[in-house]
Amino acid sequence: MLRSIGDYIDIVGAETISKIYKKASRLYGKRVANVNATFLGGGVAEILGRLVPFMNEVGLDAEWRTIHGSPAFFDVTKSFHNALQSGTLELDDHKKSLYMEINQEYANFTHLNIYDCLIVHDPQPLPLIKFYRKQQPWIWRCHIDITEPNEELWDFLKQFMIRYDIIIVSSEKYKKPDIPVPQRVIAPAIDPLSLKNRELSEQELLNCLNELNIPRDKPIITQVSRMDPWKDPEGVLEVFSLVKEEVDCRLLYCYNLATDDPEGIKIYDRVYKKAKKFEKEGDVIFVVGNNELIVNAIQRFSTVILQKSIREGFALTVTEALWKAKPVIAGNVGGIPSQITDGENGFLVDPHNYKECAEKVVEVLKNPKLAENLGKKAKERVRDNFLTTRLVSDYLDLLDEVLK
Amino acid sequence: MLRSIGDYIDIVGAETISKIYKKASRLYGKRVANVNATFLGGGVAEILGRLVPFMNEVGLDAEWRTIHGSPAFFDVTKSFHNALQSGTLELDDHKKSLYMEINQEYANFTHLNIYDCLIVHDPQPLPLIKFYRKQQPWIWRCHIDITEPNEELWDFLKQFMIRYDIIIVSSEKYKKPDIPVPQRVIAPAIDPLSLKNRELSEQELLNCLNELNIPRDKPIITQVSRMDPWKDPEGVLEVFSLVKEEVDCRLLYCYNLATDDPEGIKIYDRVYKKAKKFEKEGDVIFVVGNNELIVNAIQRFSTVILQKSIREGFALTVTEALWKAKPVIAGNVGGIPSQITDGENGFLVDPHNYKECAEKVVEVLKNPKLAENLGKKAKERVRDNFLTTRLVSDYLDLLDEVLK
Repeated sequence: MLRSIGDYIDIVGAETISKIYKKASRLYGKRVANVNATFLGGGVAEILGRLVPFMNEVGLDAEWRTIHGSPAFFDVTKSFHNALQSGTLELDDHKKSLYMEINQEYANFTHLNIYDCLIVHDPQPLPLIKFYRKQQPWIWRCHIDITEPNEELWDFLKQFMIRYDIIIVSSEKYKKPDIPVPQRVIAPAIDPLSLKNRELSEQELLNCLNELNIPRDKPIITQVSRMDPWKDPEGVLEVFSLVKEEVDCRLLYCYNLATDDPEGIKIYDRVYKKAKKFEKEGDVIFVVGNNELIVNAIQRFSTVILQKSIREGFALTVTEALWKAKPVIAGNVGGIPSQITDGENGFLVDPHNYKECAEKVVEVLKNPKLAENLGKKAKERVRDNFLTTRLVSDYLDLLDEVLK
Repeated sequence: MLRSIGDYIDIVGAETISKIYKKASRLYGKRVANVNATFLGGGVAEILGRLVPFMNEVGLDAEWRTIHGSPAFFDVTKSFHNALQSGTLELDDHKKSLYMEINQEYANFTHLNIYDCLIVHDPQPLPLIKFYRKQQPWIWRCHIDITEPNEELWDFLKQFMIRYDIIIVSSEKYKKPDIPVPQRVIAPAIDPLSLKNRELSEQELLNCLNELNIPRDKPIITQVSRMDPWKDPEGVLEVFSLVKEEVDCRLLYCYNLATDDPEGIKIYDRVYKKAKKFEKEGDVIFVVGNNELIVNAIQRFSTVILQKSIREGFALTVTEALWKAKPVIAGNVGGIPSQITDGENGFLVDPHNYKECAEKVVEVLKNPKLAENLGKKAKERVRDNFLTTRLVSDYLDLLDEVLK
């Protein structure tokens, strides 16, 4: 659990690590606070859980603070999050004032002016900046897909964004010409030593398979995702039906369902009904991926990984699968094309074209050599671009720039 | 939502508020951080949610930080919490190391040495002190009943307690002669302006009653508590059966059930079965108290409040009921006798003696004058001793002492 920067030498090489130490040497003792909305669950918490300890290890005084929201506040910010990625929202005064109130309340007892630099993550704590007499660079780090945000919400949030010194997004396409603030791309990253990504022994893999009761007699196609319309779980079943006509295989749907997500539960019910015939024959298996080790093992014993998303932020689940040297077939959306070059280290498909998607899956299933080649290149792509070490390095560059 | 210290003048008087400002004047700009385990749910979060903004308003730089635990960590600390109050626990190395690791990890990226004083709440972040080069007073604030803690656990935790400068407990009986650290009593408090405690209009009350479908044709006996053996919900039913033989009335059980609390669900099932006959006739009503306004309203339209606990920390639910000028009949345990003087402003009973408890309930039901008198004195007792303003005042005294 307590990983140290030295543990990454075997993975990225001594030179990479040495460069990180050198960059950090200009920033010794600088106080940098990250503020986000949660320390449990979600990609941002995973990233900060590694990034912040790392920064401390190389000599910065980095902090990780989380805004103290109420359940009602998090309902509102969840609706904001969704509307920033898609379109619909009733942005009434009640939502606005709850959003502002919690930020103001948190600001009242949180003395951020002791820090040399603030990095605020995602929309939840975005308005914090309004409640301080600004004395240092503030960076807004947006982790979500903002290609087509709900306009009304965007206009409302703009007033806070323009107070920041720099905005960081996850992909070139998320840059916004209407925001007169310098914008920079930093791709997110995964931690190769986390429980979700570290190497597993054959024994650990087998234990997991046995525990989950998953037979290994047929190839396994896996999608790991929430039950969420943007992940198109029903489309995944359609694709599987088409594949199944060509190659006998199994579909493993590894999902996670929050008890406070009635929409997810509805979708699950629909998908489950639709899959019933296959599920009875044991050819569609649903697994609750509420445990990092399980997700890791599932990705590792899959033959092909699907990520048939219609919309994505960066898509860290794709990064995880690529890192495990798997052939990944994924929707050409969000951050996915920045990870996969079609035909090189995976396949990109039009997520609305089930036939195309199924054809690619069949191609990979029928051609183990191709699968192996894609997988090898997939892993190297991640090693070079999407590991924590690269992320730390990017943040050090950024801090060096804003703090000099 | 954003309450200000001036709002309390009408409740406690200008002199009390003025004294608070004067005490604070010696502490202007002092940096004091509170560290606890959660900002959502539970008495400690409620207290800090008021105390910390208050301290800032009177001129301190007070902070509220929460340890970043994992679900497994919180399972362990919940078992610690229970074992400190009762007795059984398997204190294995796995639990110990998870407990230490999370504290160490949090300490690695949390720079507490910038503060002039640390106040650490409850067992979850207790070991933090081990991971700092101590440079300021550290106070451990224990909110739970530690009269008979599990011995093995106590011995394990002692190593951390002895590093603190002062330990604060909620009642004289919790002081521990085996810990060579000065120990002080600070009773907790409630916020008279919170949604749970503020005055409600007749209309708000009626809306709540209608929404909950609670008839008002008979007197209402209420217990507000978790489904937890220490709150003895089955005993509450026994008492109600006895009362019912004398006076026609209703029992309202306002409970809260966490989905991660299988024991609570079992108890609920048992209680529900036991209450079935009454419940069918509408004389026992179960209400989920997952909303502060509901709890407030329920307490206000009850005729008698029961708190038949076998064990308690301080019992803030009792404070809440007393503040609402209700006759409260409560177990003579934990912090309850420090709030209720038997026969003066409520009744104390042996929680194992159902007959005695029922007799007191009947006495109050049959004697509205007595009920009114008890209630009036109950409210004054809380006003003088158990409101946020007194708590702030105590903390200011404490800080003045340790920081001078």
